Amino acid sequence: MKKNIIIFFLLLGATVCFAPLRVLSQSPQTLKVRNYVSANKQAIMREFISFLALPNVASDSINIRRNANLIMDMMKKRDIKNIQLLEGSGNTPPAVFGEVKVPGARQTLIFYAHYDGQPVNPVQWAPGLSPFVPKVLSNALSTGQEIDHTAAGLSWDPAWRIYARGASDDKAGVMAILNAYEALVKSKVPLTCNLKFFFEGEEEAGSPHLGQILQKHAALLQSDLWVICDGPVHQSGNKVILFGVRGDAHVSVTVYGPKRPLHSGHYGNWAPNPGMMLAKLLSSMKDDDGKVTVKGFYDDVLPLSPEDVQALKLIPNNDAQLMTELGIGWRENKALNLREAINMPSLNINGMQSGNVGKLASNQIPTTADAVLDLRLVLGNDWRKQQQKVIDHIRGQGYEVIDHDPTDEERAKFTKLAKVIPGDDGYNAQRTPMSLPIAQKVIDAVKSTTKEPVILLPTSGGSLPLFLFEKYLQAKTVSVPIANHDNNQHAENENIRIQNFLTGIETIAATMTLK
Amino acid sequence: MKKNIIIFFLLLGATVCFAPLRVLSQSPQTLKVRNYVSANKQAIMREFISFLALPNVASDSINIRRNANLIMDMMKKRDIKNIQLLEGSGNTPPAVFGEVKVPGARQTLIFYAHYDGQPVNPVQWAPGLSPFVPKVLSNALSTGQEIDHTAAGLSWDPAWRIYARGASDDKAGVMAILNAYEALVKSKVPLTCNLKFFFEGEEEAGSPHLGQILQKHAALLQSDLWVICDGPVHQSGNKVILFGVRGDAHVSVTVYGPKRPLHSGHYGNWAPNPGMMLAKLLSSMKDDDGKVTVKGFYDDVLPLSPEDVQALKLIPNNDAQLMTELGIGWRENKALNLREAINMPSLNINGMQSGNVGKLASNQIPTTADAVLDLRLVLGNDWRKQQQKVIDHIRGQGYEVIDHDPTDEERAKFTKLAKVIPGDDGYNAQRTPMSLPIAQKVIDAVKSTTKEPVILLPTSGGSLPLFLFEKYLQAKTVSVPIANHDNNQHAENENIRIQNFLTGIETIAATMTLK
Repeated sequence: MKKNIIIFFLLLGATVCFAPLRVLSQSPQTLKVRNYVSANKQAIMREFISFLALPNVASDSINIRRNANLIMDMMKKRDIKNIQLLEGSGNTPPAVFGEVKVPGARQTLIFYAHYDGQPVNPVQWAPGLSPFVPKVLSNALSTGQEIDHTAAGLSWDPAWRIYARGASDDKAGVMAILNAYEALVKSKVPLTCNLKFFFEGEEEAGSPHLGQILQKHAALLQSDLWVICDGPVHQSGNKVILFGVRGDAHVSVTVYGPKRPLHSGHYGNWAPNPGMMLAKLLSSMKDDDGKVTVKGFYDDVLPLSPEDVQALKLIPNNDAQLMTELGIGWRENKALNLREAINMPSLNINGMQSGNVGKLASNQIPTTADAVLDLRLVLGNDWRKQQQKVIDHIRGQGYEVIDHDPTDEERAKFTKLAKVIPGDDGYNAQRTPMSLPIAQKVIDAVKSTTKEPVILLPTSGGSLPLFLFEKYLQAKTVSVPIANHDNNQHAENENIRIQNFLTGIETIAATMTLK
Repeated sequence: MKKNIIIFFLLLGATVCFAPLRVLSQSPQTLKVRNYVSANKQAIMREFISFLALPNVASDSINIRRNANLIMDMMKKRDIKNIQLLEGSGNTPPAVFGEVKVPGARQTLIFYAHYDGQPVNPVQWAPGLSPFVPKVLSNALSTGQEIDHTAAGLSWDPAWRIYARGASDDKAGVMAILNAYEALVKSKVPLTCNLKFFFEGEEEAGSPHLGQILQKHAALLQSDLWVICDGPVHQSGNKVILFGVRGDAHVSVTVYGPKRPLHSGHYGNWAPNPGMMLAKLLSSMKDDDGKVTVKGFYDDVLPLSPEDVQALKLIPNNDAQLMTELGIGWRENKALNLREAINMPSLNINGMQSGNVGKLASNQIPTTADAVLDLRLVLGNDWRKQQQKVIDHIRGQGYEVIDHDPTDEERAKFTKLAKVIPGDDGYNAQRTPMSLPIAQKVIDAVKSTTKEPVILLPTSGGSLPLFLFEKYLQAKTVSVPIANHDNNQHAENENIRIQNFLTGIETIAATMTLK
């Protein structure tokens, strides 16, 4: 890389020496936005870090409202109009709305991000890190050193990362949207579209009130396109546009051993061990290649459209690089590469537990074993039906399926009992055709910010309840993610790479000014 | 039961109405001890509860020493002599020693209990209970109401229970021994044997320094018999004498998924899920009947002696009652009943975990999955060899077995990696022949305290490092447990039933005065 820079200097001479490397292939607007961001980096990062210091788990209603209030303040500061909280029923996390009307605009875009984050288990975070005490490291955790982010005159090197819950998923989205708008205004880039802002507060809890909010405020929320800023760019680092999402559904399973924990010496290998029961039950759900063996699991899947098949072919296959980076020696469904695998429904063990491990382990036969399963769905799958297939499978393994902890009568009557709770937060997959004119405009806009190829993905592997936008608003959606792919979203040590955040502002700014 | 009491009263008439129900078949000494205990119940229980309020996890060195100091104080109060701490190397939990020399005694007995308890996870305890805030309930947890144990003039109903870590395992043992001695002295029962007292402080941590302490103080610790007071009586409630213990060994297993946690949508069913890998690995260790499928697992087992076979036949088979009580609809190794099953080596999942369940579950592919396995051993098994069989089995499932978290090089080189740590706290099974004269005296002593049959068990299902007593002191051991069988030892909500504790004092007192 350094060698290339030297050659570049030699070729272009001293007059353009200080111009950023990628200028020539990027639009003048992108340059203006970049210059503004560069000149205001310290203030932008301070504001972002203050935002990350607010705990943002959807169930924590007090802190969720502190987040919503801060977002309203940040919108006011930017002179965004009609700022308001859109409330669901009860004391649930509100969506934060605002808008900017542009005289003569013929299109209205609405930008979506969510300010809540996944639940946290602070003990699982690396030593020195804590979900709501943002820290800046000079690189990814394995090699990064802590940077004092309160120091004056920081350079904010592109390789630095901020570690905090929500750093990438999805407070980065909120901040990229607000800063993109501010950069356009302050750089005097003419706005071409009416802009609306919609920041959700319970996406990670499955968006239980989003439909209600959309329905209630349908008039306010009309637009030509929802631009979703959530999720990571491609593993290659190239920018990505996503035209769909997988659906999602959960199933929680509890199997039962003895009513009270037993001494593993006095009862070992006589009383049934729920950990072993669960291990056998989960094992039965996939073969050794990772293919799901639940009956009919891959039925209902609709074939891809010819344009989607074509787009898939253009996506670089970097499975080998990814496997090295992730340190994995094999992969599930080895006949499929990653871009193909995410076009299939999946079954994943999000978590499982029985008794304790490590220092807390004790010589016991635990009373229960729990697992939480995550089912991703593609076009054609119905989420309730997909859950039912798993429930039927559990029955097929000799379990009486119940929806509560067993009574003594049930324990006496049935050989094996499983409490199975199908999550009521599921939803189906969703897809916007790439060929729509407005989708093509978004592609052009994102391409104007980078000299690298932009990757067009028919679907994300991840999920968002985009079907709600179609159902209640008849709206189209396109996703323009910005986070680094190795951001640990949904887990401990979540982080955002500074470069991704800053170039993400450029991406969103371009998307705000569709022709 | 009530009906029987009424008939009894009718038959015997008013003169013996107030005598305890079992007096006629019990020795005069037992009566004296019972009367003493009955008259001093409140003080005895207060002292016990204060002892239980001291946290006693072996790794908590500050609190462990507070426990040891309190035991020394309680021994001083009872005028026991030569009180001292027997130290292992470093700041490890000391054993507390004391003795009483009896002029003319021809036998020396040494009484063992341990004052440390299993590790605790307070969140797993029932609401209102906490490991080191002892609570008294009017019955077992499912139906019991809290009793204010600080109130004056409490009756200490036999059905009441104290809930706290160590309540049964094994502070009850320490207190039964100290109170048995005091009751004998205060009731003026002539002592017949020299008595020594040895209270260990790291039994639940695998007794890593016990051998060292025994070796260092071999002269001080000479005796004709070690009487071990630890563990539960039979599930029928009948008293028990145990002549052996199973050996014990542990194996910890960690399997690896991606180096960093991944979003289950973006990578689900492409990246290997360590939870599923562990489920498949654990599943492979047992068949559906619970029989261990690890190669050679049941080899090396020595056949039972004819006297042991005979003793086993005399033990009541209460499997059906136990299954009802425990609410289990099936059992492992269905061809064996419980008394037979504990004469076989076992493999038990003490705990397993990957990611999180319940409210902390998140949509991720975790980086690791952990399990802790407990192996119980019988005569003939060597603990290191038994661990090795499990390690070989893991290799046979396609894993490269390592003893550390994998390096990037190892991740690149091997398909599947398992960190396997064989615990170094293992030991073999041990057995004292029932036919020994001193063993027969113990049987006679315990029989003198009860009109019910005394159950003679060739081995406990549980484990104690009794081989150390043989190795370093050439000593014989017999176990006389006192706790209720449903005491939740080693788990949350540990408890002791008051009746078991009080009649336990009688049992130990009888054992102290062998003829």
